[in-house]
Amino acid sequence: MNSGASEPALIGIDWGTSSLRAFLISGDGEVLERQSSSEGIMHVANREFEAVFCRIVGQWQSARTLPIVASGMITSRNGWLETPYEQLPLGAGDLARALVKHRTSCGVELHFVTGAKTEDGSAPDVMRGEETQIIGASALGMADGVFVMPGTHSKWIDVAEDRIEGCSTYMTGEVFVALKEHTILGTLMEDGPFNAEGFDLGVDAGLKSQSHLLHDLFQVRTLPLMGRIDGKMVADYLSGLLIGSEIAAEVGNRSEVSAITVIGRNDLADRYESALSTAGLASLCAPDDIVAAGHFQIARSAGLLS
Amino acid sequence: MNSGASEPALIGIDWGTSSLRAFLISGDGEVLERQSSSEGIMHVANREFEAVFCRIVGQWQSARTLPIVASGMITSRNGWLETPYEQLPLGAGDLARALVKHRTSCGVELHFVTGAKTEDGSAPDVMRGEETQIIGASALGMADGVFVMPGTHSKWIDVAEDRIEGCSTYMTGEVFVALKEHTILGTLMEDGPFNAEGFDLGVDAGLKSQSHLLHDLFQVRTLPLMGRIDGKMVADYLSGLLIGSEIAAEVGNRSEVSAITVIGRNDLADRYESALSTAGLASLCAPDDIVAAGHFQIARSAGLLS
Repeated sequence: MNSGASEPALIGIDWGTSSLRAFLISGDGEVLERQSSSEGIMHVANREFEAVFCRIVGQWQSARTLPIVASGMITSRNGWLETPYEQLPLGAGDLARALVKHRTSCGVELHFVTGAKTEDGSAPDVMRGEETQIIGASALGMADGVFVMPGTHSKWIDVAEDRIEGCSTYMTGEVFVALKEHTILGTLMEDGPFNAEGFDLGVDAGLKSQSHLLHDLFQVRTLPLMGRIDGKMVADYLSGLLIGSEIAAEVGNRSEVSAITVIGRNDLADRYESALSTAGLASLCAPDDIVAAGHFQIARSAGLLS
Repeated sequence: MNSGASEPALIGIDWGTSSLRAFLISGDGEVLERQSSSEGIMHVANREFEAVFCRIVGQWQSARTLPIVASGMITSRNGWLETPYEQLPLGAGDLARALVKHRTSCGVELHFVTGAKTEDGSAPDVMRGEETQIIGASALGMADGVFVMPGTHSKWIDVAEDRIEGCSTYMTGEVFVALKEHTILGTLMEDGPFNAEGFDLGVDAGLKSQSHLLHDLFQVRTLPLMGRIDGKMVADYLSGLLIGSEIAAEVGNRSEVSAITVIGRNDLADRYESALSTAGLASLCAPDDIVAAGHFQIARSAGLLS
């Protein structure tokens, strides 16, 4: 470790659709300070990304100019600067070579991590931001294997030898909300706290289903209609059914699955861990700040750390 | 044919969620007059079903009292009188025996056709009204086999020896609207007339899909995002994807499928016929007024036709 290893050496920004997180990172990759904000790209009026950026990183730039790496939906069509998707497989070195340099009007230079894509037959899949988290998890010593990132759109990502090999996105979270709020399935749902019994029954039905999802969904209506599940169980039954069938599909796509690493620490990640356990699969939790580890790893590969 | 065969002998009412159709039927099953109204059960204020009923059938009851058979969602929890579901398999005789008699406050008697249910493992399926249509189609000489009834909830119904053997409901129509109106998939859709190219591409993707619907849906975003399909194609691509994957699932559930009878004459039925053709399957169209034929058949089995 050199003498400046614990001094600030990098600023990492994870700028997503609904929120923003920024990290002041030392020369040996430690997170020294962090900021978070609800100023995700959909909440920034008139695309004034530069103003938000200057305010967030300004306090960290006062002493000396630090390199800055930014990842996430900030490089999408509705973001600050649209960058292309790089074709998988990709490792830290590939992402470092594909960084897109941008200079703000006040002369600050930043490096955007570009998104990644894969072709699954005629069905392309894409990510923006998740690639940086996965590189970070890998750098923090998480084993190669299967990662799941629960969310509005959950992503299943395969990693081998520190390279991202494949990606499958499921619209599970967003479809759950649309079904609950905007179809007849919502009418038999009673509000209440998380109902584990309903969730587990739904997971079980999703894991075992031999039929089509559009058919399975109808049982979310018939079961309460016939008094077979209680109104308080219906919403979590639907959640479990969707997550269970997603897990069954992903496990079915692979010849062998050992542990699956769940990324995220929230209610939704808890649901995936519970459903994986019901499926008889071991799961691991990724540590916090993997995205900052990804920024660090990519910046180092790009020679940005002096 | 007896002398009164072409005289009015029966009133049939198909009373659904969003509309109502009534038929004046002769002693040999011919439809003599028909009425239709938008007064489906969800449009009848304060559950004043009797007032609507008396107005609709009153003009036909002036000469003499005719037997009346009513089917559809009118027997559901939100209808006039909730009746139980009878377990499949069911033929006209079974439905006749299960008729539920009801006398209005002004002394008119009517007979409700009750709904039908099936158990598919732990997943019950139900219908109210479709059983009467199928019995009618069968009485009109449609071959035994597979029927599909496109709609908000499409139903696939198996008939053997004039009995309804099984039923699978798919929430295809309602899910399409929820996805289009209330998820990110709608943002890349451009309005316009029916786009056959987009629909056919979607059907093809749905028929061939080896992956999970929640994953396939994401390509409805990535394909236009990458310029692989045009904005004007996206809505019909989604429609085709859902219908194609529904057809693939139903065909996959059967060892052999010859012709499939499509019930309904509307834009949605046209889409199913087109998709069945893409799947290499022959389809037939059911004639109009099959529901009146069902009312007649059930009434005759019940001995209501004097």
